[in-house]
Amino acid sequence: MSIHRFAPRHFHATLGAHEPVMRIADGDTVITNTVDAHGYDHENIHRGGDTNPTTGPFFVEGAEPGDTLAVTIKRIRMNRRMGWTRQGLAWHVVDPARVRDMPAREKIFWQIEDNAKLVRLESPTAPLKSWTVPLKPMMGCFGVAPADGEFISTATSGHHGGNMDYNRFGEGVTAYFPVAVKGALFCLGDAHAAQGDGEIAGTGIETSAEVEFSVAVRKGVTAHWPRGEDAESIFTVGNARPLEQALQHATSEMLDWLAQDFGLDTVSASHLLGMHVRYDVANVFNPAFSVACRLDKQVLASFPRRG
Amino acid sequence: MSIHRFAPRHFHATLGAHEPVMRIADGDTVITNTVDAHGYDHENIHRGGDTNPTTGPFFVEGAEPGDTLAVTIKRIRMNRRMGWTRQGLAWHVVDPARVRDMPAREKIFWQIEDNAKLVRLESPTAPLKSWTVPLKPMMGCFGVAPADGEFISTATSGHHGGNMDYNRFGEGVTAYFPVAVKGALFCLGDAHAAQGDGEIAGTGIETSAEVEFSVAVRKGVTAHWPRGEDAESIFTVGNARPLEQALQHATSEMLDWLAQDFGLDTVSASHLLGMHVRYDVANVFNPAFSVACRLDKQVLASFPRRG
Amino acid sequence: MSIHRFAPRHFHATLGAHEPVMRIADGDTVITNTVDAHGYDHENIHRGGDTNPTTGPFFVEGAEPGDTLAVTIKRIRMNRRMGWTRQGLAWHVVDPARVRDMPAREKIFWQIEDNAKLVRLESPTAPLKSWTVPLKPMMGCFGVAPADGEFISTATSGHHGGNMDYNRFGEGVTAYFPVAVKGALFCLGDAHAAQGDGEIAGTGIETSAEVEFSVAVRKGVTAHWPRGEDAESIFTVGNARPLEQALQHATSEMLDWLAQDFGLDTVSASHLLGMHVRYDVANVFNPAFSVACRLDKQVLASFPRRG
Amino acid sequence: MSIHRFAPRHFHATLGAHEPVMRIADGDTVITNTVDAHGYDHENIHRGGDTNPTTGPFFVEGAEPGDTLAVTIKRIRMNRRMGWTRQGLAWHVVDPARVRDMPAREKIFWQIEDNAKLVRLESPTAPLKSWTVPLKPMMGCFGVAPADGEFISTATSGHHGGNMDYNRFGEGVTAYFPVAVKGALFCLGDAHAAQGDGEIAGTGIETSAEVEFSVAVRKGVTAHWPRGEDAESIFTVGNARPLEQALQHATSEMLDWLAQDFGLDTVSASHLLGMHVRYDVANVFNPAFSVACRLDKQVLASFPRRG
Repeated sequence: MSIHRFAPRHFHATLGAHEPVMRIADGDTVITNTVDAHGYDHENIHRGGDTNPTTGPFFVEGAEPGDTLAVTIKRIRMNRRMGWTRQGLAWHVVDPARVRDMPAREKIFWQIEDNAKLVRLESPTAPLKSWTVPLKPMMGCFGVAPADGEFISTATSGHHGGNMDYNRFGEGVTAYFPVAVKGALFCLGDAHAAQGDGEIAGTGIETSAEVEFSVAVRKGVTAHWPRGEDAESIFTVGNARPLEQALQHATSEMLDWLAQDFGLDTVSASHLLGMHVRYDVANVFNPAFSVACRLDKQVLASFPRRG
Repeated sequence: MSIHRFAPRHFHATLGAHEPVMRIADGDTVITNTVDAHGYDHENIHRGGDTNPTTGPFFVEGAEPGDTLAVTIKRIRMNRRMGWTRQGLAWHVVDPARVRDMPAREKIFWQIEDNAKLVRLESPTAPLKSWTVPLKPMMGCFGVAPADGEFISTATSGHHGGNMDYNRFGEGVTAYFPVAVKGALFCLGDAHAAQGDGEIAGTGIETSAEVEFSVAVRKGVTAHWPRGEDAESIFTVGNARPLEQALQHATSEMLDWLAQDFGLDTVSASHLLGMHVRYDVANVFNPAFSVACRLDKQVLASFPRRG
Repeated sequence: MSIHRFAPRHFHATLGAHEPVMRIADGDTVITNTVDAHGYDHENIHRGGDTNPTTGPFFVEGAEPGDTLAVTIKRIRMNRRMGWTRQGLAWHVVDPARVRDMPAREKIFWQIEDNAKLVRLESPTAPLKSWTVPLKPMMGCFGVAPADGEFISTATSGHHGGNMDYNRFGEGVTAYFPVAVKGALFCLGDAHAAQGDGEIAGTGIETSAEVEFSVAVRKGVTAHWPRGEDAESIFTVGNARPLEQALQHATSEMLDWLAQDFGLDTVSASHLLGMHVRYDVANVFNPAFSVACRLDKQVLASFPRRG
Repeated sequence: MSIHRFAPRHFHATLGAHEPVMRIADGDTVITNTVDAHGYDHENIHRGGDTNPTTGPFFVEGAEPGDTLAVTIKRIRMNRRMGWTRQGLAWHVVDPARVRDMPAREKIFWQIEDNAKLVRLESPTAPLKSWTVPLKPMMGCFGVAPADGEFISTATSGHHGGNMDYNRFGEGVTAYFPVAVKGALFCLGDAHAAQGDGEIAGTGIETSAEVEFSVAVRKGVTAHWPRGEDAESIFTVGNARPLEQALQHATSEMLDWLAQDFGLDTVSASHLLGMHVRYDVANVFNPAFSVACRLDKQVLASFPRRG
């Protein structure tokens, strides 16, 4: 279980079967850097493309199609003081009659205060003069190479993960991805210093980061959509438009997970979900929307876990 | 500020300008009963129609179109031991390819243990043998008479409230409804003993209840969609299909509320929401879906409130 | 089979169980007037509300819940020279990024030349100087009282018909509505001089009209959604949001019709539809969208018709 | 303007920057073969993958990003007697409550009678004993390499074209694709012998074909979505879910085309579309749905065309 350091020199605008930058073993840890959503690094030097350029891919030894790759995000350290968002909300999260009232989508800058664990607007409007946001770093875009030879833009998401922009993909989370190609080919990028549900401003606080993650191969465990787990809950993520379809995918995937790991048949799982499910609108901005179907671990405590 | 007791003798299948059952003053409290979603009362006697028959309407003196009616749900007491749900999940919350795997939608019975504050399946499947659900009563369907002379089925929802089936409409919540007719004409029904997000089983635990609520008229405060407030958060509810439109309504309404009560211009409100908004999928089952746009009160603590 | 003349004095903003204006027999014909979508009559005098005020309801003797009411639109005579639309397209039929490019939604006036059977812009833009539109009158809003005691706004549509704004509901069409209350209670209004698919300008050419229609009761023929038939085709109309749900309703209703009247089982009907179905986006503007599922009568010629 | 013959030996499961199989000049014609949607050729020998394997790509000299590639489908000759569909309708084109009534999705075989220009079921159900379908060949999947380095599955569609399954993409049509990479890299496959709107059976009559097409480069003409033109009409195709978004894309693209080639400003184009637009639901089955926005050429006859 080695620890690797990797300094990326180029970045990818798609998730796909690119040439691996490094081969790592099941259980290994990697410390690397990601550039911001427009390709700027910790010194604000342009290093990649302009839509979520990703670092990687990392070839994970032993990962085969049909397996699941578990990636634990151990740490996301903000390595730049500057972050940015856009002014106003995305035009499709308000009523069409409101679009014309929205301000121009100018770039807005924030100061990331890593020690104080907060973020503040650089030029706040009057009501926001003393407003600060707790620092809560997350990965906007990460995942594996898709199936069927696709190379899918890092602007969007799918079965393979990608640009899900879900604020629970933060420090301490373990994300699970369906392996579609030998070695899984994991990539990551687009860190956010903080973000509400839905990424309704069209961005989180976009910045560069140093990221430490470890990988584990779960042989023969089949997933169809990304899954995740943190101290509080387990969740599945459906990526599609419209929201209803993303929700269908996430719910169906949760039924699979509850059967696989908790031995719950469809009727039992339906009763459980009917009373306890939580849905998060992870993002309602990207070409594919992301909806998470989530269960508190406390709810699951009485069901023995096999996985 | 009187306390009224009202024992309903008939129930309504629509929200609209029905003959009021009682006139109450601004500030008054009412203690009354509601039947379950199929019209059965606390003795399991059939008293109303078969789709969320409601108690009321209550004419609130002083409420005029353009005002907002605040209704505080002080208490929801489960007055029947039997509750019911349906087996399996609603067919449109899973992938179309899963519909055929779903069980028949038989009625399933639960025991409501009011003293123990929990609910248990009457005939549990093996994995759910020792499973109990915390009692967390909520109102499935409540609201005021709609505008434009409409009488809208209690199966669905709209600007006027109605069958939103949102699990945050529980004890202690204050709901705000846009008044569209003189006297507001408030109705309520369809109590649930517990329910997860989205009402994805197609029901909560359906039962009868004794409900205590008080009303307040907020003169000249214009809302377009239901709003709500509990100890933890404020929220707005958009009712529409698809989910994206419900989310647009809820978000637009929150922008209005933040402007009215917290003095936040669109740009400031957008920054705040971009970092702190939470969305709840209240229901994804009824003819109109309901999405809540929610903010923790803690986030708002530094903004002086006018409302 | 009498012919009645009816001059309306008031108009309804909802479809529902209003007091009938006239009782007519199965087979009768009515000649009456409708005001425009804002309530203005043939002399441009304001007579009704401002959202598709309708004439009626007509009580059809013998019509009972479970029957279908057939209404043949024999004639729609434009009785006013002035029609109006809005400038630009509705905001939700273009990409959100285009909304801000759309012009203000000013009222635009047209001249209806009934003898020449055409319509022309009153103040055309330069490229449209010599442009005329063939006159092709249609009924925007018509239908029966809904089920369950609902009174539904004439701005929208449902099982009962209503504001479908479908350009095939023109002269010569027979529309079929599911009867939900005794007497059916048929209403009509909102004539258009012409309109493309989808009502994407948010209006047709809105005007007043004299309309001649006849009714027939089809005992024991159950429909769930409006159906229609003209010289060329038969069609079913689903009314809902989003478009996909409207399409599901229309397709399911066509399966029912093909079984009822043409003896086609699901597999046979699916083959037929798979090769021959046409879908029309009737309107993509109103609160409920309308999609028609349509088959050429020529395709059906070889299947004996029972209905 | 040469005529090339090309016999494919391998097929692609994605549209993307694959190695070209042939370089052709602006104006050239190609005669080649396509396999069916499951990869079977004219002798029913399996030659490719199992989801719309395509022939190509063809590198078109002179085509650069920002240009538009015009492809005229001169001829689609059915070179196999056997075609297939699926039994029943796709599950998401009927009401969720109908899914369980649908038959198993077995493969169904058809006989393609090229001389008689018709197709018939091999084992018809009783009511369809004498039913035949006019032969009307079309290309299900064709397009160019996408932008941003993507390789997109031939199961779906996008700005670049792809699996649009639109029944107007038949013999005589000219399709226009936005060129995103040098040489355009045109591919084609998935011919259908006939198909109704929406591809609601989940397939057309799937078969192999010999196809003759010619290409033309329109320098500096920018399109964002596929366009098309046949003897009767011009149309634009939006590819997305849900249908509403596909319709928004198609409508916005038509506004662009009317400005570019017919000199119509937004207001004029909106009037024209408001009265004359037709929408076709091209497919409502694939991962991305396709909606066409269409205008009769007759409507456009009075506007001088520049393009």
